Amino acid sequence: MSERLFDRVALIGIGLIGSSLARALRRDSPGTTIVACARRAETLATARRLGIADATTEDAAVAAEGADLVVIATPLSAYAEIGQRIGPVLKNGAVLTDVGSVKQAVVRDLGPYVPDGVHFVPGHPVAGTEHSGPEAGFAELFRDRWCILTPLPETPSEAVAAVGRMWECCGMRVVTMSADHHDKVLAMTSHLPHLIAYTIVGTATNLEESLKSEVIEFSASGFRDFTRIAASDPVMWRDIFLNNREAVLEIVQRFTEDLTALQRAIRWGEGEKLQELFTRTRAIRRSIIEAKQA
Amino acid sequence: MSERLFDRVALIGIGLIGSSLARALRRDSPGTTIVACARRAETLATARRLGIADATTEDAAVAAEGADLVVIATPLSAYAEIGQRIGPVLKNGAVLTDVGSVKQAVVRDLGPYVPDGVHFVPGHPVAGTEHSGPEAGFAELFRDRWCILTPLPETPSEAVAAVGRMWECCGMRVVTMSADHHDKVLAMTSHLPHLIAYTIVGTATNLEESLKSEVIEFSASGFRDFTRIAASDPVMWRDIFLNNREAVLEIVQRFTEDLTALQRAIRWGEGEKLQELFTRTRAIRRSIIEAKQA
Repeated sequence: MSERLFDRVALIGIGLIGSSLARALRRDSPGTTIVACARRAETLATARRLGIADATTEDAAVAAEGADLVVIATPLSAYAEIGQRIGPVLKNGAVLTDVGSVKQAVVRDLGPYVPDGVHFVPGHPVAGTEHSGPEAGFAELFRDRWCILTPLPETPSEAVAAVGRMWECCGMRVVTMSADHHDKVLAMTSHLPHLIAYTIVGTATNLEESLKSEVIEFSASGFRDFTRIAASDPVMWRDIFLNNREAVLEIVQRFTEDLTALQRAIRWGEGEKLQELFTRTRAIRRSIIEAKQA
Repeated sequence: MSERLFDRVALIGIGLIGSSLARALRRDSPGTTIVACARRAETLATARRLGIADATTEDAAVAAEGADLVVIATPLSAYAEIGQRIGPVLKNGAVLTDVGSVKQAVVRDLGPYVPDGVHFVPGHPVAGTEHSGPEAGFAELFRDRWCILTPLPETPSEAVAAVGRMWECCGMRVVTMSADHHDKVLAMTSHLPHLIAYTIVGTATNLEESLKSEVIEFSASGFRDFTRIAASDPVMWRDIFLNNREAVLEIVQRFTEDLTALQRAIRWGEGEKLQELFTRTRAIRRSIIEAKQA
């Protein structure tokens, strides 16, 4: 960042995403004061040891008071309580944003606590790894990934632009869309794949003992990739599924119908149907590579 | 290879696996004569251009005649015809092996054509990428991966050992098990994950146009990994599903039951159930990393 976008940033939650943002801010905006908030003293001690915060606190209100930008980066289930806690202390003109993977629920949970004069910009930097916690973060996490902002009709465009510039400085491509559309797109690209990966790894753990140990031993491409996805943070993902319920259930239903059709094709030996689909899916991979997301 | 294990090797099929083996043989066993067979003249021209075969032919019988080792590395649906063609010309004492991802069907399709005095060692080097064809191969493909051999009760142990040594020279860890057990293990570790990946990418292609283009555009971790798996060779995978039908259908059924249970937990907001599973699956990832397959 050539300019200092925010004088004082409060990071509520300093896990993979929060600590990666802190590192990027440290690197690109050295004049910015970073206050980190976490519930556990141990997490805050780690943040101090890593040198990614100028001050730390277990109290979200203490972190948010006087901040120009407040970034909520906790699991979704903590949002309502945080909103209630920080709402009264947010300063006039402050920008409030978040990094949650679901956006309608965020508007629902935080919206009521946002005072007049505070600009609310729900956001989702679409980046991550299967690791979690402050030590798992790194400044390059966001490089070349998308950041989706879902501002409300009343959000001033300057606030949206300010949050967007911050993510652009982290190397992200920033786009805006409605919270509803975001939740549908992510249900397909991220939430369903994670649900499937969790399921398939769960199915493997339920196998007879002799088979199970060999499944781990001979873990081939395919299953190995799924186990990486299914190693993602349990609490974060519990909250995502509970908070994007409608869109996830709708897409699971479509998936199940499609799987049943394939199952039937295998049972009845319909090779042409299988080959036709497999040829079609190969083409999708090319589109993704062309969209530079591979 | 310090010793030359086979004087003359016939590779029936020179795609990703066949051409990778050819490269490894070239590197480690320069005294071995390699004869490559493929149905398409273009494929053979590529093999000659790449310098990975001493002779090429479109006729499997020509390739197999006089070979000390015959390796079948085509899609499974071609096996029976190849067996019929090469059976009569296989020399006494020759070893016949293959690289197919299903093993009971291979015994069923090739077994009847293996003459007395020829040693049949069904095999499966568990390695691959989403690319196919002779140009996609590379000698290091097999490094640190498992090779599963499923010899018949009557296969002489010397023949099993000779095939095993070849794969060990390619960097593989070699293990033997029954064809039936192999097919169950691989149904879980490889076939189901591929079926799921094909399904989920198929579900995405069926979305309304506006959603579909954004799914490709914002393809997040999760979906992106699935598209890579779903870009695997369509004919090869059609044949795998048709030839490991029983084991695949059994494991799809278990998967569907588990997915339905999760779907229900999401619908009724049973967060504890979700979190419990997600914590369990994270532990499996650690087992895989400890088994050095990640």
